[in-house]
Amino acid sequence: MNFLTEDFLLSNDIAKKLYHEYAETMPIIDYHCHIPAEAIALNRPFKNITELWLGGDHYKWRYMRSCGVDEKYITGDASDKEKFTAWIRVLETAVGNPLYHWSHLELNRYFGFDGYVKKSDADALWDMCNEKLAGMTPRSIIESSDVKLLCTTDDPADSLEFHEVLGGDDSFTVKVLPAFRPDNAMNLLSPTYTDYIVALESASGRTIDSFKSLCDVLSNRMDYFNDHGCVLADHGLVTVVSAPAGEDEIENIFGKRLAGEIPSQSDFAKFQTAFLRFVHKEYVRLDWTSQLHYGCKRDNNSAMFASIGANTGFDCIEGSTSASALADFLNMLNSDNALPRMIVYSLNPVENAAIDTVIGCFQDSSAAGRLQHGSAWWFNDNKPGMLAQLTSLASLGNLSVFVGMLTDSRSFVSYTRHEYFRRILCDFLGKLVSDGEFPEDYEILGKIVRGVSYENAKNYFGFDI
Amino acid sequence: MNFLTEDFLLSNDIAKKLYHEYAETMPIIDYHCHIPAEAIALNRPFKNITELWLGGDHYKWRYMRSCGVDEKYITGDASDKEKFTAWIRVLETAVGNPLYHWSHLELNRYFGFDGYVKKSDADALWDMCNEKLAGMTPRSIIESSDVKLLCTTDDPADSLEFHEVLGGDDSFTVKVLPAFRPDNAMNLLSPTYTDYIVALESASGRTIDSFKSLCDVLSNRMDYFNDHGCVLADHGLVTVVSAPAGEDEIENIFGKRLAGEIPSQSDFAKFQTAFLRFVHKEYVRLDWTSQLHYGCKRDNNSAMFASIGANTGFDCIEGSTSASALADFLNMLNSDNALPRMIVYSLNPVENAAIDTVIGCFQDSSAAGRLQHGSAWWFNDNKPGMLAQLTSLASLGNLSVFVGMLTDSRSFVSYTRHEYFRRILCDFLGKLVSDGEFPEDYEILGKIVRGVSYENAKNYFGFDI
Amino acid sequence: MNFLTEDFLLSNDIAKKLYHEYAETMPIIDYHCHIPAEAIALNRPFKNITELWLGGDHYKWRYMRSCGVDEKYITGDASDKEKFTAWIRVLETAVGNPLYHWSHLELNRYFGFDGYVKKSDADALWDMCNEKLAGMTPRSIIESSDVKLLCTTDDPADSLEFHEVLGGDDSFTVKVLPAFRPDNAMNLLSPTYTDYIVALESASGRTIDSFKSLCDVLSNRMDYFNDHGCVLADHGLVTVVSAPAGEDEIENIFGKRLAGEIPSQSDFAKFQTAFLRFVHKEYVRLDWTSQLHYGCKRDNNSAMFASIGANTGFDCIEGSTSASALADFLNMLNSDNALPRMIVYSLNPVENAAIDTVIGCFQDSSAAGRLQHGSAWWFNDNKPGMLAQLTSLASLGNLSVFVGMLTDSRSFVSYTRHEYFRRILCDFLGKLVSDGEFPEDYEILGKIVRGVSYENAKNYFGFDI
Repeated sequence: MNFLTEDFLLSNDIAKKLYHEYAETMPIIDYHCHIPAEAIALNRPFKNITELWLGGDHYKWRYMRSCGVDEKYITGDASDKEKFTAWIRVLETAVGNPLYHWSHLELNRYFGFDGYVKKSDADALWDMCNEKLAGMTPRSIIESSDVKLLCTTDDPADSLEFHEVLGGDDSFTVKVLPAFRPDNAMNLLSPTYTDYIVALESASGRTIDSFKSLCDVLSNRMDYFNDHGCVLADHGLVTVVSAPAGEDEIENIFGKRLAGEIPSQSDFAKFQTAFLRFVHKEYVRLDWTSQLHYGCKRDNNSAMFASIGANTGFDCIEGSTSASALADFLNMLNSDNALPRMIVYSLNPVENAAIDTVIGCFQDSSAAGRLQHGSAWWFNDNKPGMLAQLTSLASLGNLSVFVGMLTDSRSFVSYTRHEYFRRILCDFLGKLVSDGEFPEDYEILGKIVRGVSYENAKNYFGFDI
Repeated sequence: MNFLTEDFLLSNDIAKKLYHEYAETMPIIDYHCHIPAEAIALNRPFKNITELWLGGDHYKWRYMRSCGVDEKYITGDASDKEKFTAWIRVLETAVGNPLYHWSHLELNRYFGFDGYVKKSDADALWDMCNEKLAGMTPRSIIESSDVKLLCTTDDPADSLEFHEVLGGDDSFTVKVLPAFRPDNAMNLLSPTYTDYIVALESASGRTIDSFKSLCDVLSNRMDYFNDHGCVLADHGLVTVVSAPAGEDEIENIFGKRLAGEIPSQSDFAKFQTAFLRFVHKEYVRLDWTSQLHYGCKRDNNSAMFASIGANTGFDCIEGSTSASALADFLNMLNSDNALPRMIVYSLNPVENAAIDTVIGCFQDSSAAGRLQHGSAWWFNDNKPGMLAQLTSLASLGNLSVFVGMLTDSRSFVSYTRHEYFRRILCDFLGKLVSDGEFPEDYEILGKIVRGVSYENAKNYFGFDI
Repeated sequence: MNFLTEDFLLSNDIAKKLYHEYAETMPIIDYHCHIPAEAIALNRPFKNITELWLGGDHYKWRYMRSCGVDEKYITGDASDKEKFTAWIRVLETAVGNPLYHWSHLELNRYFGFDGYVKKSDADALWDMCNEKLAGMTPRSIIESSDVKLLCTTDDPADSLEFHEVLGGDDSFTVKVLPAFRPDNAMNLLSPTYTDYIVALESASGRTIDSFKSLCDVLSNRMDYFNDHGCVLADHGLVTVVSAPAGEDEIENIFGKRLAGEIPSQSDFAKFQTAFLRFVHKEYVRLDWTSQLHYGCKRDNNSAMFASIGANTGFDCIEGSTSASALADFLNMLNSDNALPRMIVYSLNPVENAAIDTVIGCFQDSSAAGRLQHGSAWWFNDNKPGMLAQLTSLASLGNLSVFVGMLTDSRSFVSYTRHEYFRRILCDFLGKLVSDGEFPEDYEILGKIVRGVSYENAKNYFGFDI
């Protein structure tokens, strides 16, 4: 069988050599994911393969819905085995979909399954996976994946107690660092914003009655995160905007929101701008790296949102593009001396070229690849999406300084996506060489491969590992 | 010669096997086209190859203009042979253009021409084609193309008399169903809108003096179409909008239009929204499938429009994108319980990824692939366009439930485009397998190929054939 | 070594034959570049390789910044050898970037370097290049590149004195024609606009105190350019707009600007529309070809702009798209009888398909390919960008009438980009043939290759060479 061999996705000898000799053995830095520190700290075993493999995996849920599977077998009250069976039954024909590759990599690398899934395999797979899973824990999976360091994603109000547990536990050698994601503190449009402010007051022991006091609290929480090893912030935005406004106007918008009034889109744009200007000044102070994840339009199916809530598979790509606003926004930060190292991710792949040209306007000697075009994200986290990002980045920017892959995942078995990315990277380079576009010099190519796989991230973030 | 062999567009053995063993012999369901029922019913022979091949074919007209051919030989008063000759003389160098493939497929499959066209072939081709054409009629072409069922595109005011003729004629075994396209009833911006309303009143025998009465008439016409076997509606939109407004406001806009006042763009957006909400409720009631064709900016050359009218080759891709509005629009329908099965087609190929993620938010167990991303359309109906759509759909959605190809054509010899699509589909799959991205399992692959070629459409639309 | 052989970028025998037998020996028409006529007229030798190769080359500057190179070694006060060394040290890993190919083509074709650059080569290359360079001048480079004709880019206020020098110098046989680029006369938003008007008054010897008088002066300068052999105009626009306004309104906007008031964006849109309508009428009168370069957002890094000015590597792709406005704009010109032959270039590659469909609405018998989709420009001037433009143009337009490549360059060694383009063109065609999409007929293919490489431009612009 040709599928999922040791040379999976490697189409020529150069690609194979690059992968097997340079990429394969590099450890993993997963600098952005959504695994809760609690799960690693408590290290509870998994109930069964459905919990590990289907719980919270809205990618699979969407695919099942597109096959006409009843919601009962997706997020409903069917048994775990029924849900597993429902997934296995549709996986067979998922040709061209990353779920086909991810699922098979996961089944093979973690559970030793070396065929390809057929509808009729559900029972046997259920038994086999659960048997293997009995010997696994969150920590054992992370360690066996050769992860050296991972960054979780944490709210400013988070106590980081589980990071403290992990920091004090010598038995687990993988570094687990918090990352600062203050979306809740920025999102005035949320109906529960004031509840969140109460939580943030409680976490910080301070009163928040003005934008100024919000900033003070955030600054205080950033110091706290910094003391726990945090070096990364992250922002989820619908669109990037650049709408500077005066202090009084921002205080006024914020004050009204505390009083219960949801701002207009235009006022929110001003608030977003002011909020991001402030926190980015702090990121520069702390020498952190910022991440902007934008271009996602969330919770588009109101009926399903009312029924099962957020992050359940009803998000889509935002159609409007942000590249020009991004240029203005970065320029504003740069003029403020408030532009840290930054990684930009858009969910809309049509922005690839524009993003690569925007970030090229803000590179300087403060870091190789100070501004980064993040790896193909979410809906683009697949072979065509990665190739589009790599091609654009190499043509319009600089591939050799790229900090590479991250899982952005809620799952413990997503580390195979680093392998997936590295294979695609090596094949991309192997094809360039085989097409005569670059010399077959393994010293140079090997350095690029190891850089993008691991070394660049280590150096860029300054990780001490 | 390598061109247009039996393995045309099939680049490896897997692709060849998939095409020849699974796709080639499947019959055709052409669920959306622009052939008039009248032409099939009357079944008049063609005057000559120019009438069949160049009459109304604005694709060819545009290409001729781009070569600097005088309009006289395109839509003007040159003789039919002169027009044919003018086309043949420019076809020779149309490299990379779908017209090159379509034309050769048509000449080969229907007229037995098995070379490739050179400028000097015009006279010989004129004679050969006309000789063969003498033995053909609309019906004989449709039957010889192995079409089992086709859906025409019909205005609500249409009497469907020719569908009745066809329904009562046992000598023609191909099912010909009407499809409901109420663009004229929605387009308040048309200068002849009130004339159309008069025609609709006349067809329905009812007075239209309010939006409410327009809806009643449309509902009545839908029942009439339904009684004639209609299961599909279709809408041509410049952009998708989601602008809900109150009943009174809609009545006011409509009333003003009846009184002669063309509405503003913003009022028209409200009317479009209200109109589509209403008809989609009815589509759900009747269990129809809706189609949205959007992203076309029409009649851009005013001078030529004044001279030769609409649908003559002066349309282009609308630059603004609709994906976010589409998400809101579908959510509105879904919340109204007014979202039927639906196929979405955008003329702007940069929307592929966004569309695939939008429709993924509205899939459920009511149908496999309830929401569909329609096959690459019009300007995108070519190899790069189809590959882009297939790649996006497979990566971000679900290829295996795709209802596949349609001609959307005004021509009787466009059925070869189904062949063209199937070859591209099989090559797409064959490459995935050959690249090790999917196992070489013909049971699974063959099922996918037959599904996308024929079975999925049959099941999705519930055709009794 | 496989890199940069005589078959560089040619992946099969058909492509090789097309390139070596049809493209390679065709001379060059460089119908749009930014080389100053003065440099050719004075023909001063170059100080060293840094002046020739790195001076003004903001592509290389951006790449160096992305590697973290200090500005001192880019545009600062480091020595020329230090700057050269800094560039060579980062070139080694520029995989997938057009700079890698351009630089190697330039080093090989002009300086005979036939390896590939390593960090350690800086000293040897410095010596070798400077030694060879001692025997070169601007004119000798142009002549050795087999350039038959080139068009510079000139401001309406330019005296064209150096074109006169060149016109009177029989010792240099390459035709050097001016091209008319009135951006400065249109850009009311520039803070130095009134200074420019003074310069234009001085060049023309006429007073400009109204839009009408500005038009008269421009018309007069166009006649002057025309007398010096000019047949091309060029416009750099952020976006295309179509905002017709009355004469009084335009005079009012212009009058206010003369009085020091910068107009709003909406007023500027009206002025841009009026300005372009006027000059395009004149282009039709003079039988010139117009070029629209749009989609560039300039000077995005205010700090660097304040430090080192414009055209230093801080521009990016404008995110908003212009295709629909372009259709309206062309229609307006066409209805005015003011649409000349025109070449449209957008910096945003996502507009490729839309542009090809827009220009298809304005083709006619006045010229083969009257409206052209310009060759992949600036950030897109690389292999993926060229392939995207060629694929789109061939599918949606007409490749065979394409006027092909131009350097758009400030450098004397950019003529290798014509070679680069021709190789990519021949490979594009070779692959179509090898994939069975077009017959292997060298008479037809060779005609297309020679057309796109040279003949089409010669005929389209009516160059007497």
